[in-house]
Amino acid sequence: MLNPEQVELRLHENGARTEAYLREVFSELPESSREEISPLSDAMLYSLMAGGKRIRPSLVLEACRAAGGSPEAALPFAAAIEMIHTYSLIHDDLPCMDDDSMRRGKPSNHVVYGYANALLAGDALLTEAFGVLSRGLVTGVPAEQVVMATALLSRSAGMDGMVGGQVMDLKTDGEEIDFSTLLSIHSRKTCELILSSVELGLLAAGRKPEERIFSAFDEYAHQLGLVFQLVDDVLDATGDPETLGKTVGKDAKSDKKTYLSFMSIPEAMALAEGMTEKAVLAVASYDLDGFFTGLADYLLKRKK
Amino acid sequence: MLNPEQVELRLHENGARTEAYLREVFSELPESSREEISPLSDAMLYSLMAGGKRIRPSLVLEACRAAGGSPEAALPFAAAIEMIHTYSLIHDDLPCMDDDSMRRGKPSNHVVYGYANALLAGDALLTEAFGVLSRGLVTGVPAEQVVMATALLSRSAGMDGMVGGQVMDLKTDGEEIDFSTLLSIHSRKTCELILSSVELGLLAAGRKPEERIFSAFDEYAHQLGLVFQLVDDVLDATGDPETLGKTVGKDAKSDKKTYLSFMSIPEAMALAEGMTEKAVLAVASYDLDGFFTGLADYLLKRKK
Repeated sequence: MLNPEQVELRLHENGARTEAYLREVFSELPESSREEISPLSDAMLYSLMAGGKRIRPSLVLEACRAAGGSPEAALPFAAAIEMIHTYSLIHDDLPCMDDDSMRRGKPSNHVVYGYANALLAGDALLTEAFGVLSRGLVTGVPAEQVVMATALLSRSAGMDGMVGGQVMDLKTDGEEIDFSTLLSIHSRKTCELILSSVELGLLAAGRKPEERIFSAFDEYAHQLGLVFQLVDDVLDATGDPETLGKTVGKDAKSDKKTYLSFMSIPEAMALAEGMTEKAVLAVASYDLDGFFTGLADYLLKRKK
Repeated sequence: MLNPEQVELRLHENGARTEAYLREVFSELPESSREEISPLSDAMLYSLMAGGKRIRPSLVLEACRAAGGSPEAALPFAAAIEMIHTYSLIHDDLPCMDDDSMRRGKPSNHVVYGYANALLAGDALLTEAFGVLSRGLVTGVPAEQVVMATALLSRSAGMDGMVGGQVMDLKTDGEEIDFSTLLSIHSRKTCELILSSVELGLLAAGRKPEERIFSAFDEYAHQLGLVFQLVDDVLDATGDPETLGKTVGKDAKSDKKTYLSFMSIPEAMALAEGMTEKAVLAVASYDLDGFFTGLADYLLKRKK
């Protein structure tokens, strides 16, 4: 498997390719339009290019590669997923939602561009994501796979997916919830988009949902998403604020229900280890260069 | 051509078919999910089923019919356009945008469901619209046409389309603007979605963008969109509040720039008449049962 440095390098490379593709897409906007609609495209790019681990686009590109496709073909899908993820962060940070003024160490979108422009930048990213997705036709993805990718991304980001999870999170804020509700919120808010990342990669390789490789990667993504959230909760309780680059202890202070409301830190880490093993096992026969095993291990052991 | 009563009846029929299709789509959401994500799906349906003239979905279904297709095939496209239109109204009404507490004679979405839920209901409608669009594959639209429809809807509703127009409108609020800027705002905010309505209808019939029928309907939609806005501005200045079901004189009071900032009411109506003639002429050879001519005439002469 890839070691942590190799995983980071690969994430960085995949992120850079996705960013380059996104810049290309944005550069098609005529200068005259850019000025007319200013600051909209700048506001979109501000959050889109603000960094982050680029795990989702990496999963798209690597799943496509693992399925025998060319990562080039999957670039529109990788870019679309990152646009959806970015819009969700902008809307999450708005005053009427989590009211966060910082994101990835920089002022939130609405702090820089104002409330209305941030709302609209999120709307535009969400809208354009599906247009970028449709460019899969240009990079050689069969039309039926592009349509399936559209259906899939809409479902995972939509009412019974990410947005639904956001609604659940808001309405249970500060309330007692049971473990299955917590799982349902995380599954919608985090796992769904990770799941559709690998599925989009497989579709970009021209594979069909009924093939066994889909269920293998579904299992991987499902476990990976839960591990990601478990480790997030543990880091919030134990992490070093300097390494993390954000405030810690936020969950406990806000009385937010996390995995640690239901188990101890060692129990949470043991659970995460077990899930990581399951994830790795699921894709073992497809993980030719060890990226997927390395990534699971990296996310389990991360300190930030 | 169809007379005003016949046009209204047809709009009503097309609207009812689109609504029935939308209800079918929403009924696929399992009851358990509906409860978990409550009030999300109710908030979405509240605005989606709030009435309105249903001009956009009608244009989709009628353009499909005029191009030799079956309106049944175009239902997913008609529903998707209406979802996009509805999301834009919900977000427009939010306190950080136009801050409108009434819409179509009912309390705005955020007045009923709260700010955060209204924002998320808009996000979910926008996201699900593309999923509904992809159902064109099920109703028999060729996969390549579904992908083209996705690209087209994304472009017309996105940063250089509807959302861009919204940004322009916000930033020029209360400012002096020239006529070409006014045209650019209206073209983005209103015409783009009307344009993509007819184009989606043609795609649903399996037609290709290079066919002459596309340029004919593009011209029709372009003129129709401008007439719609011209008449809107005139009605705001001269209309009867009771017939309109909304406050009049709002534009003048808020010092909003409209067509009437650049021309007199008779000039505006003469311009609208000329545009209506152009619209009708453009699609004359395709307007077999007189719907398109009747609709243009209806929108020109409407009192509400």
